[in-house]
Amino acid sequence: MTVHVDKPKDLPQSVTIGPIHGSHKVYAAPKDRADIRVPFREIVLTDANEPPVRVYDPSGPYTETDAAIDLGRGLPLVREAWIASRGYASTEARPVKPEGNGHVSADKLVAPCPADRVLRRAAQDQMVTQYEFARAGIITEEMIYVAHRENLCREAILAQAGAKIADGESFGASIPPFITPEFVRQEVARGRAIIPANINHPELEPMVIGRNFLVKINANIGNSAVVSTAADEVEKLVWAIRWGADTVMDLSTGRNIHNIRSWIMRNSPVPIGTVPIYQALEKVGGDPTKLDWEVFKDTLIEQAEQGVDYFTIHAGVRLPYVPLTANRVTGIVSRGGSIMARWCLAHHKESFLYERFDVICDIMRAYDVSFSLGDGLRPGSIADANDAAQFAELETLGELTKVAWSKGCQVMIEGPGHVPMHKIKVNMDKQLRECGEAPFYTLGPLTTDIAPGYDHITSGIGAAMIGWFGTAMLCYVTPKEHLGLPNRDDVKTGVITYKIAAHAADLAKGHPAAQIRDDALSRARFDFRWEDQFNLSLDPDTARAYHDETLPKDAHKLAHFCSMCGPKFCSMKITQDLRAEVAAMSPEAQEQLAGMRAKSHEFLASGGKLYVDQP
Amino acid sequence: MTVHVDKPKDLPQSVTIGPIHGSHKVYAAPKDRADIRVPFREIVLTDANEPPVRVYDPSGPYTETDAAIDLGRGLPLVREAWIASRGYASTEARPVKPEGNGHVSADKLVAPCPADRVLRRAAQDQMVTQYEFARAGIITEEMIYVAHRENLCREAILAQAGAKIADGESFGASIPPFITPEFVRQEVARGRAIIPANINHPELEPMVIGRNFLVKINANIGNSAVVSTAADEVEKLVWAIRWGADTVMDLSTGRNIHNIRSWIMRNSPVPIGTVPIYQALEKVGGDPTKLDWEVFKDTLIEQAEQGVDYFTIHAGVRLPYVPLTANRVTGIVSRGGSIMARWCLAHHKESFLYERFDVICDIMRAYDVSFSLGDGLRPGSIADANDAAQFAELETLGELTKVAWSKGCQVMIEGPGHVPMHKIKVNMDKQLRECGEAPFYTLGPLTTDIAPGYDHITSGIGAAMIGWFGTAMLCYVTPKEHLGLPNRDDVKTGVITYKIAAHAADLAKGHPAAQIRDDALSRARFDFRWEDQFNLSLDPDTARAYHDETLPKDAHKLAHFCSMCGPKFCSMKITQDLRAEVAAMSPEAQEQLAGMRAKSHEFLASGGKLYVDQP
Repeated sequence: MTVHVDKPKDLPQSVTIGPIHGSHKVYAAPKDRADIRVPFREIVLTDANEPPVRVYDPSGPYTETDAAIDLGRGLPLVREAWIASRGYASTEARPVKPEGNGHVSADKLVAPCPADRVLRRAAQDQMVTQYEFARAGIITEEMIYVAHRENLCREAILAQAGAKIADGESFGASIPPFITPEFVRQEVARGRAIIPANINHPELEPMVIGRNFLVKINANIGNSAVVSTAADEVEKLVWAIRWGADTVMDLSTGRNIHNIRSWIMRNSPVPIGTVPIYQALEKVGGDPTKLDWEVFKDTLIEQAEQGVDYFTIHAGVRLPYVPLTANRVTGIVSRGGSIMARWCLAHHKESFLYERFDVICDIMRAYDVSFSLGDGLRPGSIADANDAAQFAELETLGELTKVAWSKGCQVMIEGPGHVPMHKIKVNMDKQLRECGEAPFYTLGPLTTDIAPGYDHITSGIGAAMIGWFGTAMLCYVTPKEHLGLPNRDDVKTGVITYKIAAHAADLAKGHPAAQIRDDALSRARFDFRWEDQFNLSLDPDTARAYHDETLPKDAHKLAHFCSMCGPKFCSMKITQDLRAEVAAMSPEAQEQLAGMRAKSHEFLASGGKLYVDQP
Repeated sequence: MTVHVDKPKDLPQSVTIGPIHGSHKVYAAPKDRADIRVPFREIVLTDANEPPVRVYDPSGPYTETDAAIDLGRGLPLVREAWIASRGYASTEARPVKPEGNGHVSADKLVAPCPADRVLRRAAQDQMVTQYEFARAGIITEEMIYVAHRENLCREAILAQAGAKIADGESFGASIPPFITPEFVRQEVARGRAIIPANINHPELEPMVIGRNFLVKINANIGNSAVVSTAADEVEKLVWAIRWGADTVMDLSTGRNIHNIRSWIMRNSPVPIGTVPIYQALEKVGGDPTKLDWEVFKDTLIEQAEQGVDYFTIHAGVRLPYVPLTANRVTGIVSRGGSIMARWCLAHHKESFLYERFDVICDIMRAYDVSFSLGDGLRPGSIADANDAAQFAELETLGELTKVAWSKGCQVMIEGPGHVPMHKIKVNMDKQLRECGEAPFYTLGPLTTDIAPGYDHITSGIGAAMIGWFGTAMLCYVTPKEHLGLPNRDDVKTGVITYKIAAHAADLAKGHPAAQIRDDALSRARFDFRWEDQFNLSLDPDTARAYHDETLPKDAHKLAHFCSMCGPKFCSMKITQDLRAEVAAMSPEAQEQLAGMRAKSHEFLASGGKLYVDQP
């Protein structure tokens, strides 16, 4: 099915809707704020003794049981009342110019999303960013929302008698047992967390990015060479968030980008990020040397008005750093970085992004567009990791972070790239130090260059580690990285791989509730509750399909063994038999067993070194 | 095609043969030993300035350009002359009993491999194991072979002027710049490395497992419920080693296992490991409580005679430890561990594997079968990681390591399992301490339980980390783990994932030559030499296929851009233009640029903190 954008009254559905198998969406309100509805995905288990497991859910209304989606109208306006109450003047949108849509011919023009929204812009003397509110001691609705969202199961954990204390190693992070709106405010005020939330994106379900919160992941989407329909482009977003993407970057270039972006913004429940220099480059015909401040500034305003939540700005690519890349194995691999390097060298001038950084701050502040300070000089190979060019830029990003904060803006910092395992922690430590703990947002890093086709894995390893060390958001890499454009399956594989990395990091950091899902799944596994095992997994469809390849019958889903070992060799079956045997023992035998257990504890205690301290 | 085992004269080919795309097999001899032919895979590049890249190659004669494979005759006898010169008496094989093939009916019996081999067994007073030779100061041909094999490109690196010194962090390993046969001998003598090499496996291309060598990977294979042909079973081995498995464990159970194993042994160039308790259990009808020492001992001799190179022996599952597993979330998840726990508890007796360990050593020594001391109490979930049961067993494995060494045996130690990232290093450190640096051989570990269907990835993260920390061999996990039997694609995915983990570990440890392949591939990438990029990758077929999905035309393989960004946005293209621009500059402009570079270096130097020390 396609969206007929010229007949908005008759929009058919063409994006993926409905709950993920074995779960349903629930909304819950924080205490005393019934008006704030925070979404979760609830997995109900087949064992009556097992409580349902609630998981974080960035997928928006698309996964509601009877999702009523109308792309032409856009999503419900979650934030409208909050933003309206803050009193910003409505303003006229800057006129759309032909170059905004890549000079597309009339017959190929995709109409803009017809959904009407009030366009707002804060005055100079109005507080508008979450950072400004936080610094002023004001707790916004967005802060209340994300606090409740992050607390996922923590109440239940804390309420348990003898609740297990998470035993992670967080490398100096300050993860609290329970997250209050005031904690969120403090973190945002310190610049240690951001809530990317453009005031022109009222459809947003707010989320927070910071090292004391759950590790987040980003998925990139981009338009196809031939744009089929607006719905096809929105579907890329819907598909990525369905599997767990917390934010989405729209890296589209070429024709129809302004209008396609309007469809994406009006239908996105997650923050959308862009790299404005891409569209600016399109406007000057693709020649980096023709870029200038005016066209860039115009692009910033254009996209801020549309509601983009964060911009990648490569302001750290300074003229003196360009020669530092001369002897690299892979030069400059960031698109934005190479564009700016080319400009600087062609004009023998300092970057206009660096020189006008204060004006960029003023523009972004007026809409609360967050900075994602781009790492234009990130290493593109193991050989170039942690080199002078990379670290020079990182130091400049630290300098710019402070400027942005002084201007009231929210900031996160982009990071590498290709880095072998032993050089990962240095990146994290340096970023925390240089950038005053502003959230780090890394691409991988890839831990080796030799596996194109599997770079979701080479980078998933690095992502899990740097997430553990303190990175707040991980930008996904798909199996097609370095080779081609990801298809639907690649996007899903990339998102699931990064959910694994982020969750492994949460476990290792000692997030108080992270292990609940692991434990529920492992109990299901040990009890041979196959359906529960599938439904608790990150990808129930694949888990079920893999199981059914060998044992397709429904009866096997109740079987107390699986195809790997069969009934005779099933260790879990044998262990269960063993437990049953103990249960059926005579009182004397049980007593003997208890003695043996005591003896074994005694034996262990005498060893003295059984419980090894964390390093 | 199938192998008609009843007509051995007319054996058709039915395993995968021929080189991996873009490469060919070469054999090279160590200095002064022209009789020792060590295999490598050589990737020739399209740029005349780029030297060919030699990579480690466990795939055996199957990947020769004109591979002549005859499964009925078995592989060439690489080691025959070496073993023969050591003067062991030939002996009669123990008679094959019906239970050795699972009481298979005559019509379903697979005939044994017809290849004839001398069966040998060392006398009590003969040195036979690599450990014994090493302790006696004798350098065996196997040691010379593996030294040359490991040195892969190191000569070239050392010969380069200004050779880059690897900057890894090896956590106390002692990786030398160049590996000599004497270094191998010392490592084997210290018990810090093993060369699994049964004297009845003359087809073996020797390899070494130890933390000061390249990290190795193991793939598991097992027979299907319905054995189609012996060739089908051999193909599983051939397929796994084609993509890089360094050893293969045959975990078959049920019918025809003795005879199928004869086909595998005679056609395997890599060490084969087994878990003898599986076959012993078959012999007593599948009831763990009916096991006894005699049937186990008989199985050890049976498999040692066939040439199996290492045995997993779960001798650390002691009676007093069984109750320690009572409150675990997932009990005992090792098949061997659960079998022995059941036996111990049913008989209220200490494990016969533990009690007869010295006799087991005597049997294994006589053929030089290496120990892989099984971790029968490994954790099967995040909740159970690093618990009392696991560490109690590890301490016992340390005790048994010393017994095995005193008996002249080679030993490695199996490890977990499911372990969150922050608990991985504790495992490695404890293993090194308890087991006197005997090689560690781990299954993953899986860093979260929540992703069945993607456990190659959850475990690849843990495998890369523990490999970096010092694990010598990583046992692969396929996407089907916990769900079903891996098919051909799953095996390949598992092997490639673990090659990634092992290589990432080699890079991080600072293996002197590990980065050569990364650098060659990254140069190919930056130069848009697509064919070279594919051929240098771990899986050229997949890399090429992914590229061709978007840009199928041959002309595109020469294109100076790819489908991700297109020509206008290609950072590498822009960087190349940038370099060309500099090259074309006037002398004055170049001078100015040099000044800028100097200035930028000056700028950086003034920052003072650019090059951060390793942690």
